[in-house]
Amino acid sequence: MRKILIIGSGKSTSYLLKYLLDKSTSENIFITVGDLNIENAKKLIGNHNNANAITLDVFDKSSRIEAVKNADIVVSMLPARFHIEVAKDCITYKKHMVTASYVSPEMQALDDYAKANGLVLMNEIGVDPGIDHMSAMQVLDRIRDHGGNVILFESFTGGLVAPESDNNLWNYKFTWNPRNVVTAGQGGAAKFLQEGTYKYIPYNRLFRRTEFLDIDGFGRFEAYANRDSLKYQSVYGLDTIKTLYRGTMRRVGFSRAWNIFVTLGMTDDSYIMDGSENMTYRDFVNAFLPYSPSDSVELKLRHQLKIDQDDIVWDKLVELDIFSSEKHVELKKATPAEILQKILMDSWTLSENDKDMIVMYHKFGYEKDGKKYQIDANMVVVGDDQTYTAMAKTVGLPVAIATLAILNGKIKTPGVQIPISKEVYQPILTELASFGINFNEKEVPYLGYNPLNN
Amino acid sequence: MRKILIIGSGKSTSYLLKYLLDKSTSENIFITVGDLNIENAKKLIGNHNNANAITLDVFDKSSRIEAVKNADIVVSMLPARFHIEVAKDCITYKKHMVTASYVSPEMQALDDYAKANGLVLMNEIGVDPGIDHMSAMQVLDRIRDHGGNVILFESFTGGLVAPESDNNLWNYKFTWNPRNVVTAGQGGAAKFLQEGTYKYIPYNRLFRRTEFLDIDGFGRFEAYANRDSLKYQSVYGLDTIKTLYRGTMRRVGFSRAWNIFVTLGMTDDSYIMDGSENMTYRDFVNAFLPYSPSDSVELKLRHQLKIDQDDIVWDKLVELDIFSSEKHVELKKATPAEILQKILMDSWTLSENDKDMIVMYHKFGYEKDGKKYQIDANMVVVGDDQTYTAMAKTVGLPVAIATLAILNGKIKTPGVQIPISKEVYQPILTELASFGINFNEKEVPYLGYNPLNN
Repeated sequence: MRKILIIGSGKSTSYLLKYLLDKSTSENIFITVGDLNIENAKKLIGNHNNANAITLDVFDKSSRIEAVKNADIVVSMLPARFHIEVAKDCITYKKHMVTASYVSPEMQALDDYAKANGLVLMNEIGVDPGIDHMSAMQVLDRIRDHGGNVILFESFTGGLVAPESDNNLWNYKFTWNPRNVVTAGQGGAAKFLQEGTYKYIPYNRLFRRTEFLDIDGFGRFEAYANRDSLKYQSVYGLDTIKTLYRGTMRRVGFSRAWNIFVTLGMTDDSYIMDGSENMTYRDFVNAFLPYSPSDSVELKLRHQLKIDQDDIVWDKLVELDIFSSEKHVELKKATPAEILQKILMDSWTLSENDKDMIVMYHKFGYEKDGKKYQIDANMVVVGDDQTYTAMAKTVGLPVAIATLAILNGKIKTPGVQIPISKEVYQPILTELASFGINFNEKEVPYLGYNPLNN
Repeated sequence: MRKILIIGSGKSTSYLLKYLLDKSTSENIFITVGDLNIENAKKLIGNHNNANAITLDVFDKSSRIEAVKNADIVVSMLPARFHIEVAKDCITYKKHMVTASYVSPEMQALDDYAKANGLVLMNEIGVDPGIDHMSAMQVLDRIRDHGGNVILFESFTGGLVAPESDNNLWNYKFTWNPRNVVTAGQGGAAKFLQEGTYKYIPYNRLFRRTEFLDIDGFGRFEAYANRDSLKYQSVYGLDTIKTLYRGTMRRVGFSRAWNIFVTLGMTDDSYIMDGSENMTYRDFVNAFLPYSPSDSVELKLRHQLKIDQDDIVWDKLVELDIFSSEKHVELKKATPAEILQKILMDSWTLSENDKDMIVMYHKFGYEKDGKKYQIDANMVVVGDDQTYTAMAKTVGLPVAIATLAILNGKIKTPGVQIPISKEVYQPILTELASFGINFNEKEVPYLGYNPLNN
């Protein structure tokens, strides 16, 4: 039997493991799941004969090497910073490797070694990054194959709560790492291209410069710009493109309300608030407002941010119980971002029966024979439950399909790869469609940002 | 003759040198001014017999040591980061030293050596830091000596243009390093104490949370919070104080207009703007606004920031010619902050006959015998011309007076010092008053932040 080693059995391992187990007999594979804590892996494996779970500390060199040596291909589902030692072992013992993480400079440095040894080190093959690359490249390549010149590419992804579980005023719950949601957009101005001009949005304006996106059957969404929309400009072959924008999707109204936290300074993760442990939620809000012996925290906030009496954004704050003088932060030496995260987790944690949803939306604008065209493509995936989430499905399935394809020699171009070549994305997208992960494409009139073009 | 070595002959050396030259015969001192460029020093010395200028590269160890060895006391007027090598030489060759800069950790590390050798290393003895320390400690000590318990201390300083030269809508010109003005307030939330509560203001709100201050004969000013108001809390003996706030003074309306730059992202110094060299001022503004094929930059800006047609803040922008499509940035690989600085320097550079002004305002609140009191103290210094500026006077004179006092053994407590002890501030403040640098004190009803206290 061919042997697959999966390191890490976190949230996104469910579908990955299910896919491989379902194919294990016909494909003659045996799966070993290694993790510090093997409870989740054991539960997912059940009494299947073609898999086992082993306790594995990735920092214990000898047991890590032992596990890698025993495998034919290694999948690392660990946090991105833990991949590199595993990758070096894979080079040493000549094993292919798959991760869903961004290619780190250390990983990229292994490219020559991987090529010299005929090894595939496939990365960025989850949902974002992953499905975004593959679905974008499929349409971009098709446009170019037919003689089109791509002038606009916009791409948006969001991890959201499914409509049937969407029951709060923010139309949002945490479906992935809450910390990343709280600090999203920090660390420098967002940069992108619009009609040939570089545009910059500072953090304090990021959530006020949103775009709307409509998806048939799912209604309207909004998106705010990612920090660096130009990251894949060259990789996608878009060096002469006029408009290039990547963003994060939310339900309409989320960003305007979120901007209240940004403006007050509640998303700052760079300093510790004095006395955070004994603060009430109300104290936390008040720390960002001027002192007054008589005016309420509510009125001070309304006044500072000029929030009208009848503005729905206010109800969103109240819903979070953020003005409570009963609830305590109870976090020692916490940053504003950590405290805000705790307050939000009270309200935005998925309930037992809640389902999540992944949405993706691409716009492709191109010129051909002097005319302009636009293709919009979108994908919606709703989770089954809290184990088989949309996030686990859209991350785990591409990883699983790629792993088997590499093992079977169908993906074979060696080196540190991301899934942007037809060899990789074509078969994977086709198979994903059979799991209900597919894009609805439609031709729309070219709009760009220029109404005069119509 | 006793020998004083002054290293650096920049903007603030004029009064420093004048004071020492005026006393040189009676005090039997000879002054050597060392700088890479000795033109300014030569001009200031003229044909005075008790001083000379020497070319000195502070990075040339042997000539630096030679100069230090020849002196009885060394004054470093270099930028702060260059002091430390000079300070080490002073320890080695047993010379006192004076600087107007903040005590760096490296400087503080010399404390034991200075004490062991009976040397005074006096720092922070310019205007801010310097006169602020001395004038604050004088009143704080007096209150405490009379049995008062200090409950409030607020301190504000501003480098501004003198009223007679104040002829633009911002009521502001650059009187010191423009870069520091453009990036002021960045690097983390401002933190201070109000009535026993820690308060935090993020950068994007800093210029919207100002206080007003009135000075008889000079009208109204505003102040925004410095980043760390609590820096000198323990040093000043204010560990149990209820309100502690330090700020920067501007004329009323400056901060609200400045906040437009902050909000748009124009003060960001962390990234380079593509194509900065060939940008017009208008292009620069447009880079922070959404693309439109038809709407003007002006209307987009008004719309984004909700600036009414009749808002005076708009005229402030127009006055800077910031919408010009004629004027070019002409800076290669420039950050937004660098470009904004260039635009502002077109309008805010002092003209030949312009005078500058330093303003300082302290509020002291205290309790005694169950009653609350408040003392307000303020200082205004107007420059004579562009050589003998208010900034040079308020930085240079305290340095000069301290230097002579140390040389004469009147200030003798050894170690790395700042001017907070009576031994230091009392004689210096007395002598500064004879140069017109003095504080107007008045008792006012205690207000604090609590109207109910009255």
